[in-house]
Amino acid sequence: MKIALDAVGGDFAPKEVVTGGVRAHRELGVEVVFVGPKAEVDRALTAGGAGKWAVIEDAPDTIAMDEHPAQAVRVKKESSIVRGIQMVEDGRVNAFVSAGNSGAVMAAALFGLRRIRGVDRPAIGSPIPTAGGGNAFLLDVGANADARPEHLLQYAVMGMIYAERLMNIANPRVALLSNGEESGKGNQLVQAAEPLLKAQAGVNFVGNVEGKDVFQGKADVIVADGFAGNILIKTAEGVAEFLFRTMRDAARGDPIATLGGLLLRPKLRSIRRRADWREFGGALLLGVNGVAVIAHGRSDGRAIFNAVRVARDAVQRDVVGTIASAIHERPAVTAPIEGQSRVT
Amino acid sequence: MKIALDAVGGDFAPKEVVTGGVRAHRELGVEVVFVGPKAEVDRALTAGGAGKWAVIEDAPDTIAMDEHPAQAVRVKKESSIVRGIQMVEDGRVNAFVSAGNSGAVMAAALFGLRRIRGVDRPAIGSPIPTAGGGNAFLLDVGANADARPEHLLQYAVMGMIYAERLMNIANPRVALLSNGEESGKGNQLVQAAEPLLKAQAGVNFVGNVEGKDVFQGKADVIVADGFAGNILIKTAEGVAEFLFRTMRDAARGDPIATLGGLLLRPKLRSIRRRADWREFGGALLLGVNGVAVIAHGRSDGRAIFNAVRVARDAVQRDVVGTIASAIHERPAVTAPIEGQSRVT
Repeated sequence: MKIALDAVGGDFAPKEVVTGGVRAHRELGVEVVFVGPKAEVDRALTAGGAGKWAVIEDAPDTIAMDEHPAQAVRVKKESSIVRGIQMVEDGRVNAFVSAGNSGAVMAAALFGLRRIRGVDRPAIGSPIPTAGGGNAFLLDVGANADARPEHLLQYAVMGMIYAERLMNIANPRVALLSNGEESGKGNQLVQAAEPLLKAQAGVNFVGNVEGKDVFQGKADVIVADGFAGNILIKTAEGVAEFLFRTMRDAARGDPIATLGGLLLRPKLRSIRRRADWREFGGALLLGVNGVAVIAHGRSDGRAIFNAVRVARDAVQRDVVGTIASAIHERPAVTAPIEGQSRVT
Repeated sequence: MKIALDAVGGDFAPKEVVTGGVRAHRELGVEVVFVGPKAEVDRALTAGGAGKWAVIEDAPDTIAMDEHPAQAVRVKKESSIVRGIQMVEDGRVNAFVSAGNSGAVMAAALFGLRRIRGVDRPAIGSPIPTAGGGNAFLLDVGANADARPEHLLQYAVMGMIYAERLMNIANPRVALLSNGEESGKGNQLVQAAEPLLKAQAGVNFVGNVEGKDVFQGKADVIVADGFAGNILIKTAEGVAEFLFRTMRDAARGDPIATLGGLLLRPKLRSIRRRADWREFGGALLLGVNGVAVIAHGRSDGRAIFNAVRVARDAVQRDVVGTIASAIHERPAVTAPIEGQSRVT
């Protein structure tokens, strides 16, 4: 198993990328190829104590975090992102992991790996911690802000396979994110998508869920357009931050509460950890012909390590091939139903 | 000041409605008219220790929580909801407050009070606690799942007036909820609404905010379609519940953590209180010609009391009149801009 790692992607690259890559090599037994400007990567590898096993793929150019994704990918053919995806395309590596410009990774993957036949739009998913210790999988969390009903159906199939293959959930319960649990509620998109999901053989559709149900574990796979999905995960992040900060501020200056906070700290830490994206590592780009994992821009070594783990699992468990045959076996998935194919 | 209260609306009616109404009479000095089946309300008033001041408006019919709103309102003319709105319409009371079927309150208000000229859609707003101890105001949180760009502009104007009049915020900063802060990001709706908000004189538009920014207090008024707004508040509710429950579960069985939790409890309580809808009491229905306040279905006496307070403030500070003249003075608000009036 060979995994290409964007050595210059992310806020703490190349140092933390090397740290994560070295750990992945040691603990996961994968071969790691560091993609980036040769001299710079070489120095970082030496500083990071990487062994002779570490391979560098020279990519002199870099796409910055704030560059226009599609444009940058078109122009910067020698960038680590375009080169890394190219390596997957050429079969030189099994997967590519980057904490760099996520739009650029998506654009490069779309251009280079192309979509799986029958998938109109790729999607990005995110695990959501649920009561009882498990996780649900929410998609799309931002690959495409707008979606049509048939896209949500495709997300459902892809999410189902992700949950089965990478989260070990048998026959995952699929739900639509909505503003009410009742069937028939929702915006026009949800109302049009609901009958498609209900009618789709092989999809264990359990109905609509509200924002608060997601954390109660009422479904394993939650499907939403990329706008609503993004609102959900960002809100969850914001509320958690708000509550922990407010608790800290409230305890300050009050010796009893401060002591309480100290005694509770180990537990609080483990709770925060449950909701920590660094643990999940990276989001697999679902719907393209190859394994590309998008890691958080603020990834540290641990996040990079976990992102490589996601990539390895996706390769080993053939997520791409499974999606391709599932979408192929379900022709209805891509056939827009008359009168419901557009949300106006 | 006379306020009509739906005596049979909500999960804990009539008991808690009476409790809240009695307190409102005592502490706010408003006259309260209890609307509902005479005999039932009479018994509840006696049991609740209401004095002779308490007036009953007989409304023999009741709209259940799960009835189809528009249909129920059309058929049940003798219901507490239709009757209460009718009283506002006839000028017999200054406002109506109900914890009953919220869709029915909205439908009755639309039919009975009608929209303010220039407002295409009413909206429901919700205060959001922010870091530092303040509140932001998010709308729409569910009056209409779908919205067009010009509706978002109308929400902005109404939210601004709400923030100025009821939250005492001078020149409130208005933002659009989006999946990224950058201008030009967002779904098609947000992309089309952004230039409208930028161009609107009198609106202090500060750009787009993400789900997490809302709790950091980056804006005073956050505008969203009712679907996205609903996802945000329900997610916030779900995450808070999830974190508090996880903390409690984690502490259980661990004496040190349990002690920590006990010492921290008073602070935790006050934090929970900050995010508690019972404190806000009720949501003013914005955009109709009269004051109608929708309280939570699970309202207790405190929530009802606070809902009456919102109604009183809205009347005293002339929110309806201010919105009417603001929308009137801003003719551009209602004029759809060519090519941007529809989201396809």
